[in-house]
Amino acid sequence: MNIPALHPTAHQRPAPAELLQALQTRFGAQFSSAQVVREQHGRDESAFDIPPPAAVVFAERTQDIADCVALCAQYRYPVIPFGVGSSLEGHLLAVEGGISLDVGRMNAVLAIHPEDLTATVQPGVTRTQLNAALKSHGLFFPIDPGADASIGGMSATRASGTNAVRYGTMRENVLALEVVTATGEVIRTGTRAKKSSAGYDLTRLLVGSEGTLGVMSEITVKLYPLPESVMAATCCFPTLADAVNTTIQIIQLGVPIARCELLDATTVRLVNQHSKLNLPESAMLLMEFHGSPAGVQEQVETVQAIASEFGAADFAWAATPEERTRLWTARHNAYFAGVQSVPGCKAITTDACVPISKLADALLASVDEAVAAGLPYFLVGHVGDGNFHMGYLIDPTKPEERELAEKLNHQLVARALALGGTCTGEHGVGLHKQGFLLEETGMGAVALMRTIKQALDPLGILNPGKIFAHAGLGNTSH
Amino acid sequence: MNIPALHPTAHQRPAPAELLQALQTRFGAQFSSAQVVREQHGRDESAFDIPPPAAVVFAERTQDIADCVALCAQYRYPVIPFGVGSSLEGHLLAVEGGISLDVGRMNAVLAIHPEDLTATVQPGVTRTQLNAALKSHGLFFPIDPGADASIGGMSATRASGTNAVRYGTMRENVLALEVVTATGEVIRTGTRAKKSSAGYDLTRLLVGSEGTLGVMSEITVKLYPLPESVMAATCCFPTLADAVNTTIQIIQLGVPIARCELLDATTVRLVNQHSKLNLPESAMLLMEFHGSPAGVQEQVETVQAIASEFGAADFAWAATPEERTRLWTARHNAYFAGVQSVPGCKAITTDACVPISKLADALLASVDEAVAAGLPYFLVGHVGDGNFHMGYLIDPTKPEERELAEKLNHQLVARALALGGTCTGEHGVGLHKQGFLLEETGMGAVALMRTIKQALDPLGILNPGKIFAHAGLGNTSH
Repeated sequence: MNIPALHPTAHQRPAPAELLQALQTRFGAQFSSAQVVREQHGRDESAFDIPPPAAVVFAERTQDIADCVALCAQYRYPVIPFGVGSSLEGHLLAVEGGISLDVGRMNAVLAIHPEDLTATVQPGVTRTQLNAALKSHGLFFPIDPGADASIGGMSATRASGTNAVRYGTMRENVLALEVVTATGEVIRTGTRAKKSSAGYDLTRLLVGSEGTLGVMSEITVKLYPLPESVMAATCCFPTLADAVNTTIQIIQLGVPIARCELLDATTVRLVNQHSKLNLPESAMLLMEFHGSPAGVQEQVETVQAIASEFGAADFAWAATPEERTRLWTARHNAYFAGVQSVPGCKAITTDACVPISKLADALLASVDEAVAAGLPYFLVGHVGDGNFHMGYLIDPTKPEERELAEKLNHQLVARALALGGTCTGEHGVGLHKQGFLLEETGMGAVALMRTIKQALDPLGILNPGKIFAHAGLGNTSH
Repeated sequence: MNIPALHPTAHQRPAPAELLQALQTRFGAQFSSAQVVREQHGRDESAFDIPPPAAVVFAERTQDIADCVALCAQYRYPVIPFGVGSSLEGHLLAVEGGISLDVGRMNAVLAIHPEDLTATVQPGVTRTQLNAALKSHGLFFPIDPGADASIGGMSATRASGTNAVRYGTMRENVLALEVVTATGEVIRTGTRAKKSSAGYDLTRLLVGSEGTLGVMSEITVKLYPLPESVMAATCCFPTLADAVNTTIQIIQLGVPIARCELLDATTVRLVNQHSKLNLPESAMLLMEFHGSPAGVQEQVETVQAIASEFGAADFAWAATPEERTRLWTARHNAYFAGVQSVPGCKAITTDACVPISKLADALLASVDEAVAAGLPYFLVGHVGDGNFHMGYLIDPTKPEERELAEKLNHQLVARALALGGTCTGEHGVGLHKQGFLLEETGMGAVALMRTIKQALDPLGILNPGKIFAHAGLGNTSH
């Protein structure tokens, strides 16, 4: 087992003074090397503890990104794109030093084409901001990672969330990009047409590349009409296996369910404590159905029949937005309920995804292992996709707890890989999954990824040390 | 306007005798340099006329592909993957010479996982073969280009077809690959999990790369449950504009239509002549609806209401497979009805795709231009995706007809690009669209594609001269 170091700073380089001077000159008030600003840009939701970037540039337009990257290229110094800082895997940490390139001020919705179901946004637009802009058009953008992440960050990590089971992930929903390459050149990939066979799929190559191949400056995404009818439901199961097996059957039958989320009894208990609720403390599925009134009714009946076979009880239904929000409180609060259940703890989160038929094997054994290890945890799952997360709650002052959490994480991911799954369904590789990526896809594919990285960023300035370790960090094999 | 030469053989190189000897030794009866075999592998559905490859290797397993590529790499000689030869854009032609690597014998369905809705196939499996294997499982694979293409060829060109409006294209439906790289190494990309954020999306980079980055040896695709209920319909419209505007409204309303195909009056007339039918000779939409009985009923009612607003008449309905096949005869026969309507003609086919709201602008003007030019043509469209094809019927002995057809093609594509669309929705770039690719995506993106090509295939042996012209062919600018 290869546990990533919490403080992998061996390769952190200070910024050349000439670069800092050049950035200051070019960007003026859009440049900051103040300690507090740097620290804001050197933290994410991961457990890594790494000194902050050397300085921060606040881009306000594409040309700012281009100029910042070009200057960093000139001085061969890392540049790290920054959205809202909600990465869970250390994507934005300056492991080799670097300039944080904050695109948060590039938060304009540039175009909404309701007639084509597309929108073009700057990378700093967050998903709730986009949805607010879409509401009057009767449209929505379905991808919803837990955090109110930026569309740029979501594109860079190939994010998904609760609606992906029906609407796909960023992979399926980004149509076109404007991107600043490693030399500071601005290129465009894709068009607003729904499909294309025009050359290499650069859009899909860049989506999920975690800022290592280019910096996105404009993103065109697909939109969807707000469903005519929406129904949400929660129900409880005698065992976790019953809830998982219900999910498997729903998916295998092709029910076009819009959301299918799982909490286990332990997590429901944490939510009850956190939010002063009285939910039955058993495994729970949270579901949502989108469609026409008749279509939704059909889905509901099918799902109810399946769930009842597995002993589901305590069905609760909600049709209005307010009722749905109330019903989903448990899901919305699960992460914070988990993290806040142990004062001062940090969460080591996992993110595995397996073929749907393997979900019970993957998930139940992982929960059993966590229980046996005695480490507090929470469990949430976008189970309709075969995707689940555990959060192991550790005392950051106790290395043995972190080691235990990483051991559980390793067992969980190894099992997912053995079952034909992936080491990350939606969080990305970042710093945390580099060893797993190699285990998952093999030396040949990782070597090919490295060849692409080397070709598109020969100076190695774009978010170095992510996806693949720095060659000197003892991971030369991948 | 830059019309690709019909006989661009300036760079065709003979095969080194040592290579042919080495292939003969390695492959024995799986190797052929017989003229008739070479000629079979030097023709596709495009209008180009190019001398055949130097020899053909019939791969029967992944190691055969690997060894063939490795030998070609050793002698720096092109290798061209071959499926069933149904390319429309010259993908398999030996413009720089080459060994045709025929994967048609690799036609095993390796695994069907009905419980996960996935199948893994060898590249020579055709779509009808796969669907025959799936039928007893109650599943199907929806991607259906006109020809009974191989899954390998469909993956390599990012193909789609009539069902793409609901089920997506090969881009959305290939989950994982086994690929032989330019050195003959075998790598794997992706997993059977539905989604992943594990590193660069090599699967999507390879899908649509037209054999220029690697040779696919195994393909894992998504499957779908056969719909509970299927209803097909055709209807006629007073004008072509009415049919197109009906389509636009159906898509904008988010109706989950499974197929939405268009023929214009001229094409229906050709079909009537070809198949001795009596269809009303007007613009026609052919539609199919998949879902539950109630869901299908709802879709049908919505679409009928929209179509009626645009003057639709002569609705014909079909619920059984036999009736549906009969109803769709016009669509199935359109290509051959077109090509056979002018004895001895060749079809120059186009393939543009635009944002749905621009479909009327793109399509109607192109038909008007064809009519004004007086060149026989046919028109078919996967219009639900904003994708349409015209086939200009030319006498191959008359260069002026070909020039006129290419001029119309150029106007059609230029208009599609101006409207925010793409120069190829599903046929690929091949030899025919190289200039358009540059116009569509710009120098920067094409340079980036070339950088990737150079990095992954530094010897330039994988299907050279496709997507990008040979540097010496006067296309050095892209």
